[in-house]
Amino acid sequence: MAALDPARTVEGLKEIRRLTGNEGGAQRVAWTDTWVTARDWVTEQLEAIDGVTVETDEAGNRWATLPGDSDEFVIIGGHVDSVPDGGWLDGILNVLAGVEVLRSLADEERPVTLKLVDWADEEGARFGRSLLGSSAAAGSLEPDAVRELTDRDETALPDALKAHGVDLDSALDARSRLEGAKAYLELHIEQGPVLEDMDLPLGVVLGTFGVQRHRVRFQGAHAHAGATPMGVRHDAFLAAARSALAWRDDAAGRDDVRATTGSVKVWPGIVTAFNGICEVSFDQRALDADVLAEMLSAAKEASQAIASEEGCSVEWEQVWEIEPIPFDARLIDIADEVVHEVSGTSHRLPSGPLHDAAEMARVMPTVMLFVKSLGGVSHPKEEDTPEEDLELSVRALHELTRRTLAWAGGI
Amino acid sequence: MAALDPARTVEGLKEIRRLTGNEGGAQRVAWTDTWVTARDWVTEQLEAIDGVTVETDEAGNRWATLPGDSDEFVIIGGHVDSVPDGGWLDGILNVLAGVEVLRSLADEERPVTLKLVDWADEEGARFGRSLLGSSAAAGSLEPDAVRELTDRDETALPDALKAHGVDLDSALDARSRLEGAKAYLELHIEQGPVLEDMDLPLGVVLGTFGVQRHRVRFQGAHAHAGATPMGVRHDAFLAAARSALAWRDDAAGRDDVRATTGSVKVWPGIVTAFNGICEVSFDQRALDADVLAEMLSAAKEASQAIASEEGCSVEWEQVWEIEPIPFDARLIDIADEVVHEVSGTSHRLPSGPLHDAAEMARVMPTVMLFVKSLGGVSHPKEEDTPEEDLELSVRALHELTRRTLAWAGGI
Repeated sequence: MAALDPARTVEGLKEIRRLTGNEGGAQRVAWTDTWVTARDWVTEQLEAIDGVTVETDEAGNRWATLPGDSDEFVIIGGHVDSVPDGGWLDGILNVLAGVEVLRSLADEERPVTLKLVDWADEEGARFGRSLLGSSAAAGSLEPDAVRELTDRDETALPDALKAHGVDLDSALDARSRLEGAKAYLELHIEQGPVLEDMDLPLGVVLGTFGVQRHRVRFQGAHAHAGATPMGVRHDAFLAAARSALAWRDDAAGRDDVRATTGSVKVWPGIVTAFNGICEVSFDQRALDADVLAEMLSAAKEASQAIASEEGCSVEWEQVWEIEPIPFDARLIDIADEVVHEVSGTSHRLPSGPLHDAAEMARVMPTVMLFVKSLGGVSHPKEEDTPEEDLELSVRALHELTRRTLAWAGGI
Repeated sequence: MAALDPARTVEGLKEIRRLTGNEGGAQRVAWTDTWVTARDWVTEQLEAIDGVTVETDEAGNRWATLPGDSDEFVIIGGHVDSVPDGGWLDGILNVLAGVEVLRSLADEERPVTLKLVDWADEEGARFGRSLLGSSAAAGSLEPDAVRELTDRDETALPDALKAHGVDLDSALDARSRLEGAKAYLELHIEQGPVLEDMDLPLGVVLGTFGVQRHRVRFQGAHAHAGATPMGVRHDAFLAAARSALAWRDDAAGRDDVRATTGSVKVWPGIVTAFNGICEVSFDQRALDADVLAEMLSAAKEASQAIASEEGCSVEWEQVWEIEPIPFDARLIDIADEVVHEVSGTSHRLPSGPLHDAAEMARVMPTVMLFVKSLGGVSHPKEEDTPEEDLELSVRALHELTRRTLAWAGGI
């Protein structure tokens, strides 16, 4: 019987880095030769495990199956693809930890089947559409919405997929792969500072944030910095500044929400005038749909009151939204027990970025584990996690998988 | 004896607009043919007045002299030049009102001589150096500081002046024109909203603001809008927003100061991150040098405290400064009496923009009259003032000149 060997996962991450990275970082962009090289190396590892079979579905997702007493199954998910000049952990840690879990469980009694999936094109780095493979499997992909996407060389998305054996119009057939699925598990680096700030190696993810994203335009009237007394100004920048602070204050002290003023543009934006127009982007996130709706309504109300006090008007234009996707309460509890056992303590936190797990949570009980990210860094090659924490995360995924198999088998 | 006829001034303004403007507005940019056309028309008007002689000095300023009992003199100043696509009043009102005052006083007893000067290149529209002629006469012009200036066609400033008979290296000889000067008077449109908001036609100018202009750079650290909890952010934009509001609050409710955040730039300035850097321009103005220094010191202190609270740093870099230039207290009182008599009420206010009077105030007792600007508009062709108010302003300048001649003559 193959005992769990988390160090092998770290060795595998280094080997993949050597094979598919360069001085700029990881180069495993989906639908490229380097991506294929990495997938093929992983497939070799998987096929060396007794009883495991590997196949690729209609959306390009690659599935490894370790049969159990029942055809019903638990899924461990990850993604081999990276952004250009990416880090050495994002996505591939999930996959290689899953390989190690399959290897260690190959000789054990399994009440249900265990599958490991390498989702195709999680990052969307080449065509700008992330979660492509997992959204096809979940049925939320709309082929017509991505058909016209092109990369920077003007290659169309359907052509790039076809070169890798995927027909966009058949991609939704991948939905059949989820028939019989009982639960979905994913391990990922946090890509945020929370666990490091709390000095914790591991955490349990409560779900992915819902997002409300708006363009907010304040309009006053610009005039000369010298000629115009303070009392008669309609300064759109100051109206925006007060609003941004009110929005932040409304979210301050809470871990379950975010409020971010990102782009800020002013007109005329010159030294000798105050501004007649200020346009900002405002991104609100929350784990709870009602909380998100209340935050949005409060933010609009605050900006309107402030704009009016400043002699300005304000207009909100929605740019994007996605609903919160909470993970499964029972699986969260199981994951929390496991993290406690493996690392001595645990912490529940929301995920800022989206993950394939968000697509899976639409259709089955889902949970994620986070392992600490140093400096909260996300995506550049400086992304890092101490090796001992990576090993702990493999242990946690292993134990979480064992308990989820038992849970799914009704034991 | 020629009675004062303010309507003639308004007629003259319309005639000049016809002669030297087009559908875009006034086109009397200094050192152009159109400027010469306007000046020659004014000179014709002046030479038709009994006893008046006209000459041009070493800096290109054109002087009309109406001799009095003494060679000592009072100056009325203005400027024929405009910005491109300029308004019909800025500068030329002062000159034509002065022509009317000279005409009406030509037959009167004058204890001292009266001069009207049309300053060369007040606007600096072509080479970016305003107050050229008056600063030469005041002695504050530094020829080497303007020698390298070029217009958009790469014509050098010294060449443009030479084409109009002015040798840059002799321009400071114009200083001799002020020998014997006892007082300087200037009428100008307000270019701001104060008088209109108070429903007053006329005001008395206390002086021109001192200015402290800085580039203020807040530095925090940007990170992901979703992954980073509110409590651990170092948001440079919010630090700048709080500072800009503190700066404004410090100046609020005061007519004698200004505080203006103009340009605002953020990095990375994208919707999915809060900002690690925010750089703003900050322009402070005050009539009193001590007040200005206190404002600057308070603003720096506030921004440092706020930046520190927000986990950011802040750096101040001075871009420009000029000291306040207060006008003469006795002349302000005389002007105030005159405005009361002419319009029934008066108001004392600072000037936001600079004027030739600021150069004159360095070397002799000086005061200005403001006449209301509709909408506070400055420089575009939409600049306007009701004709009845223009006429009142000519009356006020006339009476102010009479009393200043008497004051200068020791009567």
